Amino acid sequence: MALIGKALVAQGGGPTAVINQTLAGIVLEARKFAQITKVYGAVNGVAGIIREDFLDLTQETTHNLEQVALTPSSALLSTRDKPDSKYCHEIFKVLKAHDIRYFFYIGGNDSADTVRIVNDEAEASGYEMRAIHVPKTIDNDLTGNDHTPGFGSAARFIAQAFMGINLDVRALPGVYLGIVMGRHAGFLAASSAIAQKYPEDGPHLIYLPERIFDIDEFLAAVKKTYDRHRKCVVALSEGICDRSGDPIVLSLRKDTEFDAHGNVSLSGSWVIGDLLTQQIKEKLGISRVRSDTFGYLQRSFLGCVSDVDQHEAREVGERAVQMAVWNNVDGSIAIVRTGYYSVDYRLQPLADVAGKTRTMPDEFINAEGNHVTDAFKFYVRPLMGSGLPSPSQLRAPRVPKLLERE
Amino acid sequence: MALIGKALVAQGGGPTAVINQTLAGIVLEARKFAQITKVYGAVNGVAGIIREDFLDLTQETTHNLEQVALTPSSALLSTRDKPDSKYCHEIFKVLKAHDIRYFFYIGGNDSADTVRIVNDEAEASGYEMRAIHVPKTIDNDLTGNDHTPGFGSAARFIAQAFMGINLDVRALPGVYLGIVMGRHAGFLAASSAIAQKYPEDGPHLIYLPERIFDIDEFLAAVKKTYDRHRKCVVALSEGICDRSGDPIVLSLRKDTEFDAHGNVSLSGSWVIGDLLTQQIKEKLGISRVRSDTFGYLQRSFLGCVSDVDQHEAREVGERAVQMAVWNNVDGSIAIVRTGYYSVDYRLQPLADVAGKTRTMPDEFINAEGNHVTDAFKFYVRPLMGSGLPSPSQLRAPRVPKLLERE
Repeated sequence: MALIGKALVAQGGGPTAVINQTLAGIVLEARKFAQITKVYGAVNGVAGIIREDFLDLTQETTHNLEQVALTPSSALLSTRDKPDSKYCHEIFKVLKAHDIRYFFYIGGNDSADTVRIVNDEAEASGYEMRAIHVPKTIDNDLTGNDHTPGFGSAARFIAQAFMGINLDVRALPGVYLGIVMGRHAGFLAASSAIAQKYPEDGPHLIYLPERIFDIDEFLAAVKKTYDRHRKCVVALSEGICDRSGDPIVLSLRKDTEFDAHGNVSLSGSWVIGDLLTQQIKEKLGISRVRSDTFGYLQRSFLGCVSDVDQHEAREVGERAVQMAVWNNVDGSIAIVRTGYYSVDYRLQPLADVAGKTRTMPDEFINAEGNHVTDAFKFYVRPLMGSGLPSPSQLRAPRVPKLLERE
Repeated sequence: MALIGKALVAQGGGPTAVINQTLAGIVLEARKFAQITKVYGAVNGVAGIIREDFLDLTQETTHNLEQVALTPSSALLSTRDKPDSKYCHEIFKVLKAHDIRYFFYIGGNDSADTVRIVNDEAEASGYEMRAIHVPKTIDNDLTGNDHTPGFGSAARFIAQAFMGINLDVRALPGVYLGIVMGRHAGFLAASSAIAQKYPEDGPHLIYLPERIFDIDEFLAAVKKTYDRHRKCVVALSEGICDRSGDPIVLSLRKDTEFDAHGNVSLSGSWVIGDLLTQQIKEKLGISRVRSDTFGYLQRSFLGCVSDVDQHEAREVGERAVQMAVWNNVDGSIAIVRTGYYSVDYRLQPLADVAGKTRTMPDEFINAEGNHVTDAFKFYVRPLMGSGLPSPSQLRAPRVPKLLERE
């Protein structure tokens, strides 16, 4: 029995390089079905639903949708609003008024929670509606997923960044600290490991929020690497925590910002790099120490994308519509790895992903807690897609010296 | 009358994406001439010459040289040493001992000065030698050049970065400050202007070291933009100066580092972004203000390169050898623009480029001193090469509202 009515798609949370692939996948697939009378897009995620701020995507050209699919960051714009049940009640009123029978929300675990509450509301009032959460996050922290759309491209950016840093620090030696996004899950910082090609390549050390960060152990590890290679490249997650479980940036910043989700703002995560730079200079006596906080570039840089990530982001959108139409179900689309490298998609209950956070499994982190295992490299490499650049070194022989030197 | 002997090539200063194109151009061209008996590469620039640390590049495969050409950052490694006349005397002693008759130094204006002193030394002692400075710098600040190899790729990185930032800030509005490399010349920060595609796109404001930076005028301009667009994207050169001519980062940092050239280290240039972020929050009452310092990524990121820059970097190397062999001259290779878009190369006297700095001409900067002109966009666009990505927006019509809202 076909459910007849409109479809609504919205995007929430931070940008990824491929979030509009998912949008295009949903819109193009939804437009194929006669029972989906129109396809609307909410501007600014749930905030736009409350405002009834909709675009009629039935009147968007296929060609432009394909161009938009290649553009990073939410084309429908985004929001950081995290609806409570009153807010979700307002959303539901609008959906009902517009006869929306298919609701697709592209986002992370907070967005999944929104879909869950709206869906419960619809069921409670006997309004028949399909509500599907479609995964998206560079953090790769959604439960039930082998990995999430958006992660592969961001991971590729991190790997390419550290490949360049390796070359830079090789030419002009010193210590380099790169601060990478990741509040609770270290997947992105860990992806820097793919930059290691030659034996002396960095990152020599990788610090993740999944392990306790101890400043003395850190300094000892930097010293050991520097004594050996006369250089040291380090990747650090912005969310690294001290022994008491507090983000180390917390003890460094007096005035801490909180966003609407109650998350600590790490926008000043350059503080981590600065503090550690000072410590290395003072305690290890190394003069050339540099740090970068990769910031917004790692999630929206135009021109660094994984083709595998693009394909999968497109497919999660397409599958979301297919499952809603053919299976008459609600839930959250998840990516399942079925081979090396192949994937398939399944629908998991909204409650299984909503508000939950997945972190790096133990087998991906080395015993010392300061690098990754080969199992992680094997896991992450295919997600970065084809055509990953690779640096080359000269291998010409040394010339014998002619002058007598003191 | 052919000058018979060895050739030596070295690389100095900071990395670029195409500096090894120039290395390959020199080595491959030099290996064609019978009078060039061997081609050596000095490891770590002038520091490696003093140490007699040479690679025999006559024994490097052409195929590997082509792979190295695609790799950013000095394959021969680099140095920040700025030789004085005593140091240059040491260099000259080593060149003479190894019967080096062709000396090619790839670098910026400091490297040109080194070549000049070594060349003077050779002339004074009647040692016949060709000494050629081959241009390289992402800063685009060498006199006598339309632009410099390395600049186009770095400019492309900046443009692609700001394209992504535009999309990010469009989805989640606020104020964004991007701090771009450039001590004295604003070319790189100015290149962010190419990110403007749609009318409301940023960067809305661009601050350059060529103009006085006034904090009150800055805040007024940010407020004006924000009032109009509810967002504001700003590009700032790390070298922006206050009314007294001091870099504004100077008044912000107590312990200032100096490098061997006497240049102020701007490695803590995130301080600029942090100070200005605080000012905007406090004085304009805007809550979402973010800043990134692009740091090392902008000069060594692997996978963002201009094909035009690659071609030209290869050609300056090739032409350097040809001029030294066929014209028996010393000097500095310079890029001359001959059409839109075509170039040719000329040799300029070493003294015309050594130690000098070129800055943005007035016709490239707008009257308010906070953006660029169309003349600059016309100038810079071809240097970024082909295949520059371009973002696309949805253009679907708005849906009429159905609910009565208070």
